[in-house]
Amino acid sequence: MAAEQDPEGRAAERPLLTDLYQATMALGYWRAGRAREPAEFELFFRRCPFGGAFALAAGLRDCLRFLHAFRLQDADVQFLASVLPPDTDPAFFEHLRSLDCSGVTVRALPEGSLALPSVPLLQVSGPLLVVQLLETPLLCLVSYASLIATNAARLRLIAGPEKRLLEMGLRRAQGPNGGLTASTYSYLGGFDASSNVLAGQLRGVPVAGTLAHSFVTSFSGTEVPPDPMLAPAAGGGPRVDLVACVEAWLERVCAHLGLGVQEPHPGERAAFVAYALAFPQAFQGLLDTYSVRRSGLPNFLAVALALGELGYRAVGVRLDSGDLLQQAQEIRAHLRTSAAQFQVPWLESVPIAVSNNIDEGELARLAQELVSVGGQPRMKLTEDPDKQTLPGSKAAFRLLGSDGSLLLDLLQLAEEPPPQAGQELRVWPRGAQASRTVRPAHVEPLLRLWVQEGQLCEPLPSLAESRAFAQLSLSLLSPAHRRLEQPELYQVALSEKLQALVARLSAGGPQ
Amino acid sequence: MAAEQDPEGRAAERPLLTDLYQATMALGYWRAGRAREPAEFELFFRRCPFGGAFALAAGLRDCLRFLHAFRLQDADVQFLASVLPPDTDPAFFEHLRSLDCSGVTVRALPEGSLALPSVPLLQVSGPLLVVQLLETPLLCLVSYASLIATNAARLRLIAGPEKRLLEMGLRRAQGPNGGLTASTYSYLGGFDASSNVLAGQLRGVPVAGTLAHSFVTSFSGTEVPPDPMLAPAAGGGPRVDLVACVEAWLERVCAHLGLGVQEPHPGERAAFVAYALAFPQAFQGLLDTYSVRRSGLPNFLAVALALGELGYRAVGVRLDSGDLLQQAQEIRAHLRTSAAQFQVPWLESVPIAVSNNIDEGELARLAQELVSVGGQPRMKLTEDPDKQTLPGSKAAFRLLGSDGSLLLDLLQLAEEPPPQAGQELRVWPRGAQASRTVRPAHVEPLLRLWVQEGQLCEPLPSLAESRAFAQLSLSLLSPAHRRLEQPELYQVALSEKLQALVARLSAGGPQ
Repeated sequence: MAAEQDPEGRAAERPLLTDLYQATMALGYWRAGRAREPAEFELFFRRCPFGGAFALAAGLRDCLRFLHAFRLQDADVQFLASVLPPDTDPAFFEHLRSLDCSGVTVRALPEGSLALPSVPLLQVSGPLLVVQLLETPLLCLVSYASLIATNAARLRLIAGPEKRLLEMGLRRAQGPNGGLTASTYSYLGGFDASSNVLAGQLRGVPVAGTLAHSFVTSFSGTEVPPDPMLAPAAGGGPRVDLVACVEAWLERVCAHLGLGVQEPHPGERAAFVAYALAFPQAFQGLLDTYSVRRSGLPNFLAVALALGELGYRAVGVRLDSGDLLQQAQEIRAHLRTSAAQFQVPWLESVPIAVSNNIDEGELARLAQELVSVGGQPRMKLTEDPDKQTLPGSKAAFRLLGSDGSLLLDLLQLAEEPPPQAGQELRVWPRGAQASRTVRPAHVEPLLRLWVQEGQLCEPLPSLAESRAFAQLSLSLLSPAHRRLEQPELYQVALSEKLQALVARLSAGGPQ
Repeated sequence: MAAEQDPEGRAAERPLLTDLYQATMALGYWRAGRAREPAEFELFFRRCPFGGAFALAAGLRDCLRFLHAFRLQDADVQFLASVLPPDTDPAFFEHLRSLDCSGVTVRALPEGSLALPSVPLLQVSGPLLVVQLLETPLLCLVSYASLIATNAARLRLIAGPEKRLLEMGLRRAQGPNGGLTASTYSYLGGFDASSNVLAGQLRGVPVAGTLAHSFVTSFSGTEVPPDPMLAPAAGGGPRVDLVACVEAWLERVCAHLGLGVQEPHPGERAAFVAYALAFPQAFQGLLDTYSVRRSGLPNFLAVALALGELGYRAVGVRLDSGDLLQQAQEIRAHLRTSAAQFQVPWLESVPIAVSNNIDEGELARLAQELVSVGGQPRMKLTEDPDKQTLPGSKAAFRLLGSDGSLLLDLLQLAEEPPPQAGQELRVWPRGAQASRTVRPAHVEPLLRLWVQEGQLCEPLPSLAESRAFAQLSLSLLSPAHRRLEQPELYQVALSEKLQALVARLSAGGPQ
């Protein structure tokens, strides 16, 4: 598997990947003499997506790459000059040419962390003008990544830890990088693999795939493989004509299933044989190109049993249309009787994979029965029109009980001393009218310093490490919070000082 | 404005931007001796998206770029070798190294064409193995581009030809290239501009943007601009202290609106002044950071009237929250009375722009009143589980009446002679039980040959030209077909020969 590397990410490394108003505001700040004023912005969810009680933080690796590469080249500055007023002071463009992220500091939740509403995923501080230009690209990089990771985590919770989940959304993604982002962060959120080869090559995501209906329909059955001979799995012994062996098995299979030997489609069988010759160790049958029961299943069984004679075990079957659960149950029954009939015990437990528009509801229905599920994680971007945000630079802590259970996440002003384990403190849960007290047994700071004055402070975990951390994070949530529908909301609370500041600003602001 | 150029499109030019099963099937075909067999695939919509009766074809420019660059480098082949069986014949990988698109031919609807169900947007023919590898990336490049262009076209139809439509979806896109694709093809489909600077720089999309709430809130009102002096628009005459001039106007404005002079937020006013100093020719006020009526509007009027004294005309106001229509109507009324009160006629017709989650319904409500609308085109990918496709290589024609009206689109087998103008022919409308006759006054071939044996046959139109062609295409649709909800479906019909082939295959195929 390739190491993670990203020569592809060109758009993700272009400084002009930003909204024009960031540039017009930059000019406004510059003209107001405020370009180098210290500033900070935070990115956070206002509500948990998908109706749940958690989100997963993701996208930090793309943000850090963007910051590292951030520098306006001459062509970038010239382009901005072409869209800003012609009488703009040339000194502004000189200032743009000098910009980089050497004054920028980034604190963030590690990727795979639980991210709760109002808790910053990312805090970016530095000179006002630079920080303004960074807002759109970092928001773009964090928000989709976090949503897709959260979505994947929800599907993983439904499927349980053992089922294989495959992401196959490339063909319907928002273009090439949309697909690459989805594949990468589905994996981080808990999927096992992606169909997207580029995500494997560039990001180290495990890849998976077998064959499509078009492969099956492209065979008529009259094709003659140039070399139908296959050596046994163990290596020794004579090569066997797989085509002839499959035809012999077909008669026995059809007799067992009560089918005429002419019923299974010869083109489908030729396609299965061609695939088996190429992948004898990894033969999977796609059963639903024609009729599952009268064609796909007997053709699969004939090829699988012929391969079995040579010591190969088929790795599975796949269904891509129709009532997936009902068909899967029928197939399992046929696999069981066939295993008994032909005295091939492994056939009984051949994995059944399903794909085709699987959403959370369908997955919940399937998860009990099946081993492998592929599809496109469904995305829904949440948007909250409430533009009010919490004031000031903040710190965030997770308070835990003596048994390690999560009590709440606490937001306070950055200058306040951190909460102490074992000490009672008064906090204001968001959305509640009254304060409460809490005595944490453990206190964990949530935001880590990743970049200080432009310098990376510590290397990022690998994608696979972040994926493991995501599963660990989710395992700490109580079942009531982890529930996907109408979950108990996990509490985020403000410190007394932050609460007082919010109250003061609400009262004192203009009407 | 930059010419269209695309150094960013790296993911869009990587040959491994494909589903793994395309590679496993490639090995299957190769092992079956079929790698160089001639093959063709078509990409098309099964149904029109968004419940409409049309789609717009788009994405061809990205497809041709992908095909031009398509070649597996050593690293690509090595990566595939790492995920395919270790005993795969090395000759297969040699074959992969030799692949390019020199044998590939592409026919397609020009970008901006009306695309009807079953009519191919793209026909790709060439050696089976290459064509298989191309399927996923070309589908990825065409489907999202066509959907976003169609969506933009629908919003343009609602807004009418005069309103300015701005796309601002970057921060919520599927990562950087998702945003770039959306910006590019929203423009092709009929939007006027995008907030995405990179889309301007790389694709030549006009860009637009002013200021955000964060700019307004970053000013407290105590800031002193280093240079508050502004020269008159005409160039001659002494420079004027804009800050002082605005404060003088504020008193008159507040008196007119019945407000205390302390009510408008001083920070908001300082932000407007800072922006006006930077953009005196293009001052726009964002009115809803605090209270529109008690702060945003009077601050805007004070700055706009001060600028007016110097000969500058404010270009507009913007609303980004709340009931956009109601507020816009109130603002218009205030602009009218203020224009009369201060004898500044141009103030009456200052454009009002709105943004914030504008969908088709909201746009329809707004379109009567407003001049400029920004937002993210809403996307919904349609997916039809029906996997049945029309057989054979096809040609497509549009049949027109003597007045240029569209009669229907005709699909026939590629080898059939094209329909002749003035001659009656019998066709089978899709979805109908019976045939009908039609006598077209004009016949237009729909698919154009763009690439023949790997060579580009003619240059693509520019993005702006395709945008104009899209509007021309839409103008030919009758109002009944153009209607966005419950439209009359535009007829796509099959030739007698194609219909007979479909019937034969349906009857003769396996059950």
